[in-house]
Amino acid sequence: MTLTLARLQALDEADPLAAFRAEFRLPEGVVYLDGNSLGPLPCATAARIAAVVEQEWGGGLIRSWNDAGWIDLPGRLGDEIGSLLGAPPDSVLVADSTSVNLFKLLAAALTLRPGRTVILTETGNFPTDLYVAEGLVQHLGARHVVRRCAPDALVSALGPDVAVLMLTHVNYRTGAMHDMAALTAAAHRTGTLVLWDLAHSAGAVPVDLAAADVDFAVGCGYKFLNGGPGAPAFLHVAPRLQAEMRYPLTGWLGHADPFGFDEGFRPAAGIGRAAVGTPSILGMAALQVGVGIASRAPMPAVRAKSLLQSGLLMDLVAQECPDLELELVTPRDPARRGSQVSLRHPHAWPVMQALVANGVIGDFRSPDILRFGITPLTLRHADLWRAVAVLRRVLQGGEWRQEQYQARRPVT
Amino acid sequence: MTLTLARLQALDEADPLAAFRAEFRLPEGVVYLDGNSLGPLPCATAARIAAVVEQEWGGGLIRSWNDAGWIDLPGRLGDEIGSLLGAPPDSVLVADSTSVNLFKLLAAALTLRPGRTVILTETGNFPTDLYVAEGLVQHLGARHVVRRCAPDALVSALGPDVAVLMLTHVNYRTGAMHDMAALTAAAHRTGTLVLWDLAHSAGAVPVDLAAADVDFAVGCGYKFLNGGPGAPAFLHVAPRLQAEMRYPLTGWLGHADPFGFDEGFRPAAGIGRAAVGTPSILGMAALQVGVGIASRAPMPAVRAKSLLQSGLLMDLVAQECPDLELELVTPRDPARRGSQVSLRHPHAWPVMQALVANGVIGDFRSPDILRFGITPLTLRHADLWRAVAVLRRVLQGGEWRQEQYQARRPVT
Repeated sequence: MTLTLARLQALDEADPLAAFRAEFRLPEGVVYLDGNSLGPLPCATAARIAAVVEQEWGGGLIRSWNDAGWIDLPGRLGDEIGSLLGAPPDSVLVADSTSVNLFKLLAAALTLRPGRTVILTETGNFPTDLYVAEGLVQHLGARHVVRRCAPDALVSALGPDVAVLMLTHVNYRTGAMHDMAALTAAAHRTGTLVLWDLAHSAGAVPVDLAAADVDFAVGCGYKFLNGGPGAPAFLHVAPRLQAEMRYPLTGWLGHADPFGFDEGFRPAAGIGRAAVGTPSILGMAALQVGVGIASRAPMPAVRAKSLLQSGLLMDLVAQECPDLELELVTPRDPARRGSQVSLRHPHAWPVMQALVANGVIGDFRSPDILRFGITPLTLRHADLWRAVAVLRRVLQGGEWRQEQYQARRPVT
Repeated sequence: MTLTLARLQALDEADPLAAFRAEFRLPEGVVYLDGNSLGPLPCATAARIAAVVEQEWGGGLIRSWNDAGWIDLPGRLGDEIGSLLGAPPDSVLVADSTSVNLFKLLAAALTLRPGRTVILTETGNFPTDLYVAEGLVQHLGARHVVRRCAPDALVSALGPDVAVLMLTHVNYRTGAMHDMAALTAAAHRTGTLVLWDLAHSAGAVPVDLAAADVDFAVGCGYKFLNGGPGAPAFLHVAPRLQAEMRYPLTGWLGHADPFGFDEGFRPAAGIGRAAVGTPSILGMAALQVGVGIASRAPMPAVRAKSLLQSGLLMDLVAQECPDLELELVTPRDPARRGSQVSLRHPHAWPVMQALVANGVIGDFRSPDILRFGITPLTLRHADLWRAVAVLRRVLQGGEWRQEQYQARRPVT
């Protein structure tokens, strides 16, 4: 059946999540398909930050660490994120960046499997995950190795030498999604610990960390959780492992009694020992607003709309842009894709620049990927029509060949 | 000569820095002597953050990484902080927390001195510095050792086994200040690298990292730089060492080409390789306002006022509070003290609670220290009169014995 704008508009009329769009400020004239790089601004964020700045910081000053509950915020906000991810209370902490959290958890995981020497991951994992693992291994004197293999060879690569399996749940380039429960179970059968990077999962796809018996996870606050640029990240440690965790980064806020100022480190009980330095209160205040919105959006509805929209985008591209050198990269199988659609094009960089100049904002991912994030809380079905119409025009008319779209910029 | 309120008021009249106070919002009725724990709110911060949130994030969305210069902010703001510290351009980066930065620099320093096994520091250093060093050593298999000695024994403890001397310039409890140039030179004579923690120095006392030929430094954004609760921290690496630095934390933003998404890590040239994950834009926006104010305050005037005020506070306590069990902990010698006054009292916890309840906000530091930060940009000389009058009343009248001041709170 041919897709029409009218049909997409009808889907918007019937959309049970339609009201969420009004909770975000989106610029006029923009179709934003980049909420998986930087989620849009919730309407409530500015006022919340202003209150934290003016009342809590300006008025309360140092007293706000107690009176405004700043000191507990990493754990409280962690619990709010954890409830989106099927994580039990006191198993998620907001802290640092995703990269730093990866380092902390990977290092601790290696100490839990002292006889094993391999960090297993996949080719094509997000680079920072690979860099962090390699950096850790070098730092520890190269007694370990980072082994990368193709996604479909992961299970057969598991074995008694693998300390930890480190994977990103939804691939940043392709949008392919792993079977978290199956891979975790396969790893556990070989005594391997599992660390999932949820950067493109939290707030975007169903995740049940407890049901999958996941050991460790990290994730990002500024994508589908709409926490703002450089929002604090989070980490998860299964309660059964928390007492054994020995982190390489032992900062004062991970101490059992930070304000006792003992000269010796005594780790806090539970998830709190994963804290290091003083957490960003402004960053957490903004993140809390985004997480609050996500908490009110039923994940089954979010997932249904996400799959509907990513499927529609695939179908629209096939219908409107045949013979335009576009190749679908994201899996068609709904069980195997996250919340994005990636298309390969030989001139992806200038094509994306031309799309952005025409108000359709997605991402370029090196070397040849056009990446479109699907954010069901803000994206209308009719927006997909406009996005694909612009894509078609840019490609057919050759607008992307214009000079101003060729130059690379620092952030791509 | 007896100190009087009139004399203090006359000093305020003549204060060349008096106008800076109007650049901060301070609650009515409070004498804030805790700017060394959390600096007060600059008046310009709320509007700056609102602009970043509403225009850059809300309006610019992902484009602001380029268009608003977010991607370069850690280096640009680092240069602004560096210029307060006598650091050359491209030698300071805003990143992570002080604790995480300590870990990165200490680990890299050990790799620069492979034959040496000792991290030398002093008894009484800030606990997170000790914890981070110990955690690093444990993490590396205990092939190194953290050696602590008394401050006056540091030089004699230097030797061919010491890889790095790690010190805090101004001690958090006592306010004692080290001679940075002399200790750095002594360490260099033995081939030892030096890492200075400037948490209580940046914006508070004169620092000239280049003149002292300092190798590494870390520091804090939320104290005398007035960057807000949990503001990002900074780190400094001397240019002569930058090309050799091998950090244990190798995240994507430390890559030479982060958006090339190579699978192998290739460190950025210069200070940029010390970056790890995505930096907090909201935190840096707030910090930049505080740093901007500090940049307009001439350090000689700041230092002169700081020493005058800390000296007056010592004198006032001696004059007004004799026989009240107070013992001065901070050195009387101006060359040996930072920008605080610490007093020992056997019941320091409830005494500080009573002071706070009476509008005089300082810090308790375990087990028996009353700590008063001197922040020349906001503190009036007459404020010292009120602070000491309240201290005298609380001690003489025994108000601190009241029930409500006894219970410990999470943050002290």
